[in-house]
Formats: sequence, C-alpha cells, structure tokens
Amino acid sequence: MAAEQDPEGRAAARPLLTDLYQATMALGYWRAGRAQEVAEFELFFRRCPFGGAFALAAGLRDCVRFVRAFRLRDADVQFLASVLPPDTDPAFFQHLRALDCSGVTVRALPEGSLAFPGVPLLQVSGPLLVVQLLETPLLCLVSYASLIATNAARLRLIAGPEKRLLELGLRRAQGPDGGLTASTYSYLGGFDGSSNMLAGQLRGVPVAGTLAHSFITSFSGTEVPPDPMLAPAAGQGPRVDLAARVETWLERVCGHLGLGVQEPHRGERAAFVAYALAFPRDFQGLLDTYSVQRSGLPNFLAVALALEELGYQAVGVRLDSGDLLQQAQETRGVFRTVAAQFRVPWLESIPIAVSNNIDEEELARLAQKLVSVGGQPRMKLTEDPEKQTLPGSKAAFRLLGSDGALLLDVLQLAEEPPPQAGQELRVWPRGTQESCTVRPAHVEPLLRLWVQQGQPLPPSSPQLCEPLPSLAESRAFAQQSLSRLSPAHRRLEQPALYQVALSEKLRALVDRLSARGAL
Amino acid sequence: MAAEQDPEGRAAARPLLTDLYQATMALGYWRAGRAQEVAEFELFFRRCPFGGAFALAAGLRDCVRFVRAFRLRDADVQFLASVLPPDTDPAFFQHLRALDCSGVTVRALPEGSLAFPGVPLLQVSGPLLVVQLLETPLLCLVSYASLIATNAARLRLIAGPEKRLLELGLRRAQGPDGGLTASTYSYLGGFDGSSNMLAGQLRGVPVAGTLAHSFITSFSGTEVPPDPMLAPAAGQGPRVDLAARVETWLERVCGHLGLGVQEPHRGERAAFVAYALAFPRDFQGLLDTYSVQRSGLPNFLAVALALEELGYQAVGVRLDSGDLLQQAQETRGVFRTVAAQFRVPWLESIPIAVSNNIDEEELARLAQKLVSVGGQPRMKLTEDPEKQTLPGSKAAFRLLGSDGALLLDVLQLAEEPPPQAGQELRVWPRGTQESCTVRPAHVEPLLRLWVQQGQPLPPSSPQLCEPLPSLAESRAFAQQSLSRLSPAHRRLEQPALYQVALSEKLRALVDRLSARGAL
Repeated sequence: MAAEQDPEGRAAARPLLTDLYQATMALGYWRAGRAQEVAEFELFFRRCPFGGAFALAAGLRDCVRFVRAFRLRDADVQFLASVLPPDTDPAFFQHLRALDCSGVTVRALPEGSLAFPGVPLLQVSGPLLVVQLLETPLLCLVSYASLIATNAARLRLIAGPEKRLLELGLRRAQGPDGGLTASTYSYLGGFDGSSNMLAGQLRGVPVAGTLAHSFITSFSGTEVPPDPMLAPAAGQGPRVDLAARVETWLERVCGHLGLGVQEPHRGERAAFVAYALAFPRDFQGLLDTYSVQRSGLPNFLAVALALEELGYQAVGVRLDSGDLLQQAQETRGVFRTVAAQFRVPWLESIPIAVSNNIDEEELARLAQKLVSVGGQPRMKLTEDPEKQTLPGSKAAFRLLGSDGALLLDVLQLAEEPPPQAGQELRVWPRGTQESCTVRPAHVEPLLRLWVQQGQPLPPSSPQLCEPLPSLAESRAFAQQSLSRLSPAHRRLEQPALYQVALSEKLRALVDRLSARGAL
Repeated sequence: MAAEQDPEGRAAARPLLTDLYQATMALGYWRAGRAQEVAEFELFFRRCPFGGAFALAAGLRDCVRFVRAFRLRDADVQFLASVLPPDTDPAFFQHLRALDCSGVTVRALPEGSLAFPGVPLLQVSGPLLVVQLLETPLLCLVSYASLIATNAARLRLIAGPEKRLLELGLRRAQGPDGGLTASTYSYLGGFDGSSNMLAGQLRGVPVAGTLAHSFITSFSGTEVPPDPMLAPAAGQGPRVDLAARVETWLERVCGHLGLGVQEPHRGERAAFVAYALAFPRDFQGLLDTYSVQRSGLPNFLAVALALEELGYQAVGVRLDSGDLLQQAQETRGVFRTVAAQFRVPWLESIPIAVSNNIDEEELARLAQKLVSVGGQPRMKLTEDPEKQTLPGSKAAFRLLGSDGALLLDVLQLAEEPPPQAGQELRVWPRGTQESCTVRPAHVEPLLRLWVQQGQPLPPSSPQLCEPLPSLAESRAFAQQSLSRLSPAHRRLEQPALYQVALSEKLRALVDRLSARGAL
C-alpha cells in the first residue's frame, strides 16, 4: 500500500458508519449461536450506469483501510448498548468489544478494473456477525467510488487521450468527504486532476486551478498595486512596470480588433495584471466575467503580450458560461489573427479551457477542448449474501483472445479448476438459454486476494496477487483495461453488451436452487 | 452550541478542503496588497430545488465549526508551497501561517429557516484573503445540507405530521461523510430518524432499524437455536419454547388463511424466530423475501401470535419490493381478519412500513403509510462576491401579516433602517417592473449574527441573536417555519412563487450598477 497520507481520513469511515439493522441482525445471529459461522457476501451491480456496457471497479483501497482499522471502541459499544434493548445480554457487548477483522478475507477486482454486471466487485468472507457489520460501509465505499470512476472513464473516452480533464465539483459536492471521494475517483477514472487541494494533499491527486470570477469582480480598476514592476523571465535586464506596458498593448490590441480602448473593463484588466504579477509564468485569463469579445479577450491579449515582451508565455484562457463551443471557436480565430499581426506564433495555439456543467453530450460537442465536469451520476450496487447452503463461493475469470481483446467473463464455483488458455470451454451466457463454446488465448483471474484473515498482503507476499497499487498506478491500469475493450462494448450509447457467462456447474446449481424457490 | 460530540467530524472539513484557484487568487490578492481589505461574500440560490417555492437553510452549524477551527497547519502551508510557483515570495507563506478567522464575521439565516431565491443564506465578511479561502468549503457545507433538508421537508409535507419517516440511504450515499450529512439533514428537514448509527452517535439523530433480507436468507430452517426458550414479558411464569409455539400457531394461521402448512418458507420462519428471541419486545417482520402472502405474512403472524401468548406485542411489518401500496392494503386486510379470528385487537392496526426507492410521487400514493426515502436531489448555490464599490452589505427582513403568515422577504442596504411593524413600505418585487406597498404586522430580521470576528457568540451574549440551537431544536424550528407558509407557497408542484422584494434604495443601486455594466 502506498504511504498512508491520510491518518484522519478514516474518521468518517468508522465502525458505526453502518445501519442499525446490521447491529440488530448481529444480535440476532449472536442469540441464535451463529456469530462465528463462516459467511460471505458479494457486491455486484445488475446494470451498468449511464447506459453503457462497462463500469470501473474502485474503492478497494478505502475498503482495505476500513477492514484493517475495524475495531469497536468503548464509546461505540456504549452507543450500541444505548440503542439496543436494555435487557440485551451483556455477553453480546463483550463479544463486540473483542471484535476485529482478523478472520475476514477480502477478494476483489483490482482497483481500476473493468467490471461487468453480475461479476462481483468484492467478495468478503469471515464470521457471520462481523461480515454483516461490514456490509453497509463497504457498499458505501465501493458504490460511489465506482460510479465516479466510471463517469470519468466515459468522459475520458469522449475527450480522447490527449485532452486535459479537470474535476472542479467541490462546491457542489455532497459534503466535504463526498467532494474528496469525487476528486479522487475522477482522477482514477481518467481525469488529469482536480481543483480540490485536500485530494492533492491526502491522496496525491494532481491539483490545478487559476482564478474565478470573484477575483475579477473584486477589482474596480482604481486599485494601485503596491509594486507593478516585473523582472524579465530570464532574470536579466531591468524590471518593467507591467501595468503601464499593458495599457500600451491594450491600445494596439483594440486598434487591431476595431474596439474602443474604453470598452474593455478596467477592473477586469486590473485583476489580470494583479494575477500576472503573482503568476507571470502561469497567467491564465478567465474571459467571460463581462464580455468575452469586447472585454475579456482584449484585456487578456494586452496582458499576455506585455508578459511576452518580458519573455513570459501565458498558459491559456478559460470560458465558463454561454455557448462554449462557439465562443471557443471565435476566440481561437482572434488568437490566430493577433498571433500573425504581432508575430507571436505560440499565441495561435494557446489552450482554450472550458467549464460550467459539462455533461457527456456537451463534451462530445466540444470534443477537442479542455474541460471540467460536474455531475451526480447513479449506480445501484447489490449485496448478495451467499447462503450457507451454497457449496462455497464463486470465482470469476476474464477470457481474452490472442490479440489481448476481451472475449467474455466467466463465473464458476470456487472449487472448479480455472479455465485454461487454449482449451475449449462450454459456458452459458447470462440472459440466454443456450450455451456456447469459447477457446481463450489468455485467462485472467478476476478476484484477487487483498486481505487474508484481516491482514493486507505485504508487498513481498508470495501469494499470486499484487500489493495495493498507488492511485496513479490504478489510474494507468484503468486506461489500459479500457483500451482492451472492443469499440462495440466501449461505445457510450447503445453499446453491445459484454457477455458474462456461467460455467456449466454453476448454471446447474443456480437452476437447482431456483427450482427449490431458494433464489 | 450543543455539546461537541464530533471531535473528528472536522477531519474532512479541513482548511485545504478548498479549490486551488482560491489559493492562487489569495496569492494574487496578497501580491496586489489587498489581503487585509475588508470583503464580503454571500451564498444564495436563484431557483428553489424540486420545482418548489421554498428551501430550508441548513449547514450553519458545520460552517460555524469550520470557521472556528480554521487554521493552516505547517503541513498545509507546505502543501500549498508545493503547488504554487517555486519563486513565490516566502512572506506569503508566513502570512498564511498566521492566518485565522479572528477577523471573520458570519451572518446567516437560522438553521432550519425558510429560504427563498436571492435572499442570502450566509453572509461572510472579513479580510479578503481569508474570506476567499472560506468560500469553497462554506458553499460545500451549506449547499448539500440545505438540499437534503429541503427534500426531507417536502416529503414530510406529503406524509403529514404523524407518519414516521426514516432515512435509510447510507448504502447508496456519496461516500461516508455524504451519508452522515444526508442522515443529519434529513432529520433536520423533518424525518424522524435514520438507520445510520454514526449519525446517531455523532449528531444525536434518532436511529431505527430491524432486519434486512440477508438475515432471512441466511437461515435455511435446519439451524438449531442454542436456546429457543423465552420468558414471559411480565417476567413471571415458566419459560416457553418459542420455536415450538410458532409451529403450533403456523398451523392455525395457515388453516385460517387457506394455505398449506408447508408453503411458508422454513428458513424465513427460523430467521423470524431467531430475531424474536433476540428482540421479543421489538419484533418486526420483513415480509417480502420470498412471497408476502404465502410465506412472509403467515410466518410473521405465527411468530407474532406466539409472542402474544407470552405478553409481547410485535411492532409491525415492513415491505421492501413490488407494489407497496397494493401489498400494504392486502396485508392490512389479512391483519384485520386474523385479529378478529384470534381475538388480538392490536394486530388490526399494527404499523406497516414500506421502503425501496420511494420518491415524492410514490410517497403521495402511499400517503398514509410509514416510509423510508432515498434520493439524490440537486440545488445550485451561487456565490456572489460583493464588490468593494458596493456601499456596504445587504440586510434581509421577513414581513408577516397579523395572523403570522409570511407576506414577503425584503432585501435592502445594511445602512437603511429596518422596516417597521405597522408602517407602510414601498418595495420592488424581483422579476417585476413595478413596486408595491406592504404594511407588515410583524418584521423579522433574517440574517442573524453567528460568528463575530471569529468568535461564535456565547449563549450569554448580550447581542440580539440566539446561541446555536441543537439539531433537534432546529428541526422543530423548520417545521414551525413551514407551518407559517401559505398553502399556495407550500404546494410542491407549480406553487405560487413567494415574493422577494428590494427596497427602493437597493433597487436604485442595482439599476445604477447595471447601467454601468458592473452587474
């Protein structure tokens, strides 16, 4: 596991972050003498979110951390005692005090894996009582993380691999930790970073951001900067009064654009100058506070060209309202003519960033622009407690063709031998009544072992599984996984459904149980 | 402020829970010599969520806590230094190290107040630099809390004051803290409680819950309870084998209902017995794991009647799938005939709880049943940084008729004298071109002072404002506020819009600034 940067992060994910009915059921199991019985539950989903054919599995790191830290403190047990019947056997609370996850094993898809309906994201086994208490928090940790990661992956597919995607949703997030989770898993799913500094500090998410409208509107233009002087980028030569140079450039720019020199807003220009003085190497203009064409753009150009004289190159502009595509195109046109007019070639291709409630449709329209995204997607995870009558737990494998492309996923009984590369296999695709045969060139086991009897595996573990990767590693894994999915399955609307199939034995078992009314 | 039960609750709401652009802007202000300039921002919304005409203000407690604890630690400043330009003046970081909210003042609508478009929920004033850093976290804390509280208030209006409403959404919540926030503010908005134990432990939200399907499916019916004996409720008399009594009652119930005694699922019955042994005084049956009519209901009745012999009264049943209304009606019908047949009158009116994705429409259909609710509503809050050129900040008043009914809200300049009860006032309703006059019988100031120069007011403060109420007090205040809203404004669909008006002076100022292109 990567260095633990977030000692306080588990504060909200404490053992009592669970539903009361989990605790009442725990008492029920205990009273029935079943607390130590071995149980297992699986988390999976029935339908992919957003109408797609895939999801990304995420949240595993948080689950491992939660399981590792799980322990009821005295205050927790006292609270439980206060909400359970007063005549509850004190021995039950003794049992809770001694509870930990030393008997719990977690198998899961690696963070950032492609996940398909019916294939478990997470399998948790251990003593019935403790596994029951884990159900709600683990659902909560996996469900939202996977949803956000999937959303990000879809937007990344639309934008293509090169464009910069930033998550700026903290203000609208569902509480502080909702924001932290969204920033973290947007990055995992394929975004380049976030404006959320806490996600940077605690989770290592790259952070980005420049300025907002409030900065611009806070300047009236009458402010006198305490020090308007700026040294050249190379560090040599005299310092120059940037504010004065900007006024000179404004006249030239307005002349070229056919604007009156009084039209661009003074306060906006003062804000740009103040920002450029603080960030001469990272000057970005937010153009739409007043009028993009008549104010934001000429003010930006005046500052950018004044900086250019000193050897600094502005990093771009941002549009945050209105018809983003049209404005971006018009702005690009202006950059081209100004670049030619004043012989500043880099200005021609300076990045134009856009933001403001960009959804998939808008992003598709903008495709070649830099974007930020906010949204509240949904995916419903299902928990399926395996019954003790089921002969063990399920295993899942991904079958691949000789070119590395994904063929289908197979669910089978844990005790069955794994599918073998090069050998023909008969499987029963879900949702159909007929079997098919498949001869995979490669076979990947899907559910890896992450926590065995309460201990996360150390990096040096001899087991056939990896140590928990870093967030950035999981992000790269997610993109690599997506690249192996065929275009028909990767399509965001009306995709071909990716097949998940059952082994003959599992199918026969399911049939048997269904006939008995047990499923 | 109520006793601080949540010392760790601020973990996620740390100073760096803000957007990077707030920090870059802070550097910009500092470089421009404006860090200490007095500034103010307001949070308000432009449209009520869910198509209604009101919202509830919430999140103030969290904001006060955040402001009170705000302080950049060394690690925070170091992180900032790592993401700002390497040549940033070290004096800026010295400034950050010394930063706190001792100069910050917070005015806000009391927690649980009715809020209308354009009326600030929160006004924060203080040194420009620190106020800028507060903007994102306070938006984040107020926005989701108010949204959830409003959603809960609407559902409470549909259900009426008597029905029990429980929030059960933790599994689907947006991360752990998203769940904690939702549980807390659902309660504030009018719910009776939550299944989320952490909300109970940390925030004092009443918790409730019994059992889930997983408990029932974990029993096959072959389990042997270690101790099937139960003592009578009154504590006197011999202990009785509950499991055996349940089998006897099952025959009678099946005979009455015309069912074969083999039809009800054995495992379900074993689960009910196990639960009843643990919770004889709080036995609730979850009826829809197999078949409500052919299994869940007869099994429940057998256990409830066996308990009844021992003097225990079951607390009710729950339905969690299918057509909830139809099933509830059928179930009620069965309760009536069984109550008559076996002379157990209380059984006739035993509560029937329903759950499973209940939205406003479904709740309206169910109106007279007990429900739980989950959902992901939206409300967009706007931040509006007041410009220094504005002559001071705004004040807001609520005008009431002689019967206590709400007439309209008035926004005016802070320096204007407040409206006087009994005096005619000319105001300009927003969205119209004409003024109107109003003569309020009562006038309430809306924005109370909660934090003055960084210190929350002590309960004994001589100021004209209350100490922060407890969550339960705010909940009561919310219901009282809603009761004063006229039915036309309280209507959930196509309501009459509640008027928010400007004073003549504020309107004149807005006109002037608009004409100058400054708004």
